[in-house]
Amino acid sequence: MQKSTNITWHGAIVDPAERQQVVGQKGAVVWLTGLSASGKSTLARRAEQLLLERGAIVYVLDGDNIRFGLNKDLGFSPADRTENIRRIGEVAKLFADACVVTLTAFISPYRADRDAVRALMPADTFIECYVSASVETCEARDPKGLYKKARAGQIPEFTGISAPYEEPLTPELVLETGSQTVDESALALIKFLEEKGYIKAV
Amino acid sequence: MQKSTNITWHGAIVDPAERQQVVGQKGAVVWLTGLSASGKSTLARRAEQLLLERGAIVYVLDGDNIRFGLNKDLGFSPADRTENIRRIGEVAKLFADACVVTLTAFISPYRADRDAVRALMPADTFIECYVSASVETCEARDPKGLYKKARAGQIPEFTGISAPYEEPLTPELVLETGSQTVDESALALIKFLEEKGYIKAV
Repeated sequence: MQKSTNITWHGAIVDPAERQQVVGQKGAVVWLTGLSASGKSTLARRAEQLLLERGAIVYVLDGDNIRFGLNKDLGFSPADRTENIRRIGEVAKLFADACVVTLTAFISPYRADRDAVRALMPADTFIECYVSASVETCEARDPKGLYKKARAGQIPEFTGISAPYEEPLTPELVLETGSQTVDESALALIKFLEEKGYIKAV
Repeated sequence: MQKSTNITWHGAIVDPAERQQVVGQKGAVVWLTGLSASGKSTLARRAEQLLLERGAIVYVLDGDNIRFGLNKDLGFSPADRTENIRRIGEVAKLFADACVVTLTAFISPYRADRDAVRALMPADTFIECYVSASVETCEARDPKGLYKKARAGQIPEFTGISAPYEEPLTPELVLETGSQTVDESALALIKFLEEKGYIKAV
């Protein structure tokens, strides 16, 4: 729904190819999706560190910098969850347009929400990355005690317990964080970005 | 208002100083404010081009990439205008945190809204930049015919005509786009960023 009127669209003056050349990489949105405690944020932060050490321009969007800022007006109702993911998708698109390798770490349990984000951006920008660990593994970790609270009925509609998680059907990448170390997953992600030409080989 | 619960704050693993070193610059939000047709977007796009030519990492947020995307659900009511500026401020903060020199080009007529954005981020990140041109000058330019429509009563609450523009009281920078060329203003902006140490001297 486009509410605004009296606005016009101008193409950016900067040529995308020129920007890529200056920044030295291609923008990407690595959309990490998976259960709570599957390791999305930890993986994103580790990959960010390793990418920066390679000289790449990278940024992580996760609950830490989104839920306390841009989306602090949103709760966990179905409508708010969808709006949460929509806004994150729009922001990630802007970062990728700036040629930043953007890692997002949100449960994003619904295929329709993830597909809507994919549809926002150029075809080769969105990289759906399934951070795969079983509910049992995630519940055994439970670093924030959320599964325990969910089992006690203190958190309604908790993904994997009392609300669905819809696995990606054809993700660009699957990282088995249930069986791999954080570094193994992070390095697999970086290898993917290098092989697909988003970042330079070192 | 913080609606979310069951979230915790983790510091980013990456040290901001390390990120600055890798990216080779300090993040900044250059907040261009001024009347419609004062030249904010043109100035931002020209400065972006010149900064990229210097090898800086830079991005412009303006109506083109915000009103059609992140804020497409917002109209021009007072509440929507405030939310529009709030979201842009939050996104600009993220870009600056990623060490991108971020140029925003929005009328943002209210001091309270601009001050709220300033308060979101570290003290040396926000650079309020008054893009100064008289209503007469802007109305004479009127590239989109908006002043004409506003005079004809077809646009209610049009800034400078039927709604106030609150000039910045102590902006970090004033660019007289009514009397300067676009390049003169853009170069003055870049000189400021260089002198204040946001970008490297060339």
